[in-house]
Amino acid sequence: MTIDQARALDAADPLGFARQRFALPQDVIYLDGNSLGALPVATAARVARTIHDEWGRDLIASWNKHGWIEQSARLAAMLAPIVGAGADELLVGDSTSINLAKLLGAALGLRPGRRVILSETGNFPTDLYIAAAVPGAELRTVAAGDIAAALTDEVAVLMLTQVDYRSAAAHDMAAMTHAAHAAGALLLWDLSHSAGAVQLDLAGSGADLAVGCGYKYLNGGPGAPAFLFVVRALQDALANPLPGWGGHAEPFAFEPAYRPAPGIARFTSGTPSIIAMAALEAGLATFEGIDIAAIEAKSRALSELFRAEIAARCPELALASPADPARRGSHLVFACPNAYPLMQALIARGVIGDYREPNLVRFGFAPLYNGFEEMVRAATIVAEVLATREWDDPRFHQRAKVT
Amino acid sequence: MTIDQARALDAADPLGFARQRFALPQDVIYLDGNSLGALPVATAARVARTIHDEWGRDLIASWNKHGWIEQSARLAAMLAPIVGAGADELLVGDSTSINLAKLLGAALGLRPGRRVILSETGNFPTDLYIAAAVPGAELRTVAAGDIAAALTDEVAVLMLTQVDYRSAAAHDMAAMTHAAHAAGALLLWDLSHSAGAVQLDLAGSGADLAVGCGYKYLNGGPGAPAFLFVVRALQDALANPLPGWGGHAEPFAFEPAYRPAPGIARFTSGTPSIIAMAALEAGLATFEGIDIAAIEAKSRALSELFRAEIAARCPELALASPADPARRGSHLVFACPNAYPLMQALIARGVIGDYREPNLVRFGFAPLYNGFEEMVRAATIVAEVLATREWDDPRFHQRAKVT
Repeated sequence: MTIDQARALDAADPLGFARQRFALPQDVIYLDGNSLGALPVATAARVARTIHDEWGRDLIASWNKHGWIEQSARLAAMLAPIVGAGADELLVGDSTSINLAKLLGAALGLRPGRRVILSETGNFPTDLYIAAAVPGAELRTVAAGDIAAALTDEVAVLMLTQVDYRSAAAHDMAAMTHAAHAAGALLLWDLSHSAGAVQLDLAGSGADLAVGCGYKYLNGGPGAPAFLFVVRALQDALANPLPGWGGHAEPFAFEPAYRPAPGIARFTSGTPSIIAMAALEAGLATFEGIDIAAIEAKSRALSELFRAEIAARCPELALASPADPARRGSHLVFACPNAYPLMQALIARGVIGDYREPNLVRFGFAPLYNGFEEMVRAATIVAEVLATREWDDPRFHQRAKVT
Repeated sequence: MTIDQARALDAADPLGFARQRFALPQDVIYLDGNSLGALPVATAARVARTIHDEWGRDLIASWNKHGWIEQSARLAAMLAPIVGAGADELLVGDSTSINLAKLLGAALGLRPGRRVILSETGNFPTDLYIAAAVPGAELRTVAAGDIAAALTDEVAVLMLTQVDYRSAAAHDMAAMTHAAHAAGALLLWDLSHSAGAVQLDLAGSGADLAVGCGYKYLNGGPGAPAFLFVVRALQDALANPLPGWGGHAEPFAFEPAYRPAPGIARFTSGTPSIIAMAALEAGLATFEGIDIAAIEAKSRALSELFRAEIAARCPELALASPADPARRGSHLVFACPNAYPLMQALIARGVIGDYREPNLVRFGFAPLYNGFEEMVRAATIVAEVLATREWDDPRFHQRAKVT
């Protein structure tokens, strides 16, 4: 595709206006929103308001006066249409890892006599680490194709990442939930690489439990609070294994014994960072008035264009993601020799993706701020860097602390 | 004491300069820094730098370029002199509740055959809730005077809050640690109401484990990240029961099995909020160049002055804190009739303390920003509000959501 053709796609893009909601640097093609979402224009002022006008001026009274106590519920209402759940089924706070520990512990408690957490080989490491440490549980991992057969009556919970962090392979949520339920197991989704880029329907798929990350496609900022989902019907039957004061039925009664709040609030533990939550609020606000179906459609169009352009220009890169856009999330990964220095050279040229062990370059597409011209320009730069062997510069071979 | 005498004390106060480090509103006497510390002047710019210059401009590269990956260690080094520990014994992140769950779970693992967590009746509720939920553990609570007798060989860990959130009664850290160790138990301190106002010596007291809050005297902002302490000698023997990717020996190798990082880093779970950590960094910076011994000395002088002024002017208020400043932390609590509307009337007059069930008014003294004139003026206003029965206005009887 020519640059002019791509520009015509951008001009006709119904989501094109959303890029103005982001403060992206000039001369950068940012294809790493699946790792850290870009900065929304509104974030700095939103956070400054919390710091100056709320904390600074009204101090402790802000819990009531500025609704800090309702902040998690406010964010849940903004997140609800993005993940296809009810606002009263979502809780925002803590990290994805901690939320996983809460829901896995709770799920095990609901399936006495079953102790297996079934997951996929190659699932995101933190999911496996947390699952393996759930007291009394046994973690079992199998290849994606073997999940159905592994759903025995020992399995308490099937824990899957909806979009794989490396390959971008996506699970069919409804089908997997059906299989888990048929085996008497609960299904827990990790939506970290899906939420904000893929059209999710937690309610319609019958899902029981989910967690997800706030700092990828949700644009909440580095280390933003994560979220968890518990389907309404299960909420009062589940016990939070990390029951802090925030999840008590009457947090300000300071009772010596724990009585869980009704509903989703019982999954609160300690006090969330109000400042970090304010930044996440600005991140979620970048989705305002935008249908998630349009986001998914644009994600597929972007990734298909990039895939085709790379296929045409860069035979050195072997697609390691599903070729069918309906079977993957919003990023693409390619295997190639010298993947690490290649990515460093691309970053030096302003095309920001990332490297994943052992030989993968990964590019993410954020429909709110990436455009079609960027796809063609990025693929052109990849081809140039390969042709000129720019990546062979020793400075690109030096490993950074964070890759 | 007259206002002029109090002003003379302020003029001679070696810590008087520190108030300029805070952006306190005019016409407010803020005596609730034990619940939410005041806003430091530097916070807004520090946070804006992280948002604009780091996240906004350098995006994902900030993990290396701006040292986000070392942020917890940087904060630990700032916290170390405040709590009397080594920087390599402290980890900043997560909430106090989550950190408690980590350390209690780890401690139980180190004392096989012992399953009792011993604590004090009336300890801060979240501590008791989290302890009661530790898998395999039994929580036992006794009055402070009965702790020594309750330290049987069933006790794995003695969990105490160093300064009680209601009474301000303070435990002698060295004596308690000695008693716990003599019984073969570990000692876990909650320093939430101590850190930043009391001279702590974690190292010298022989303490094993501790947690503490970032948003009280440490001025990190609402819901700021908390901290945990593990004495060097125990670090490699303890297993984090919430082992997220951040605590892995090689977090970016994405290995399927967990291998804990050496040292304190293994207690990391997920990714901390970089924005919330930046705010906490500005909070910790308010202690720069200030000896914690001077802070404790001023805390005692402030609280003694307030105690004496209230005793002289307000016989309706019965001191419910230890009368000896060496046996309490940096706040005072008084029992009185109509405590709830009294505190609301005081807040309306600009004297901000808080109410605690069932009949307590609580006033905290933050040596970095409170002064002696404030003590006399606040006590005068309390006396006026009592004398005029201002608290009898119906609007002061209406319970807010957060008290």
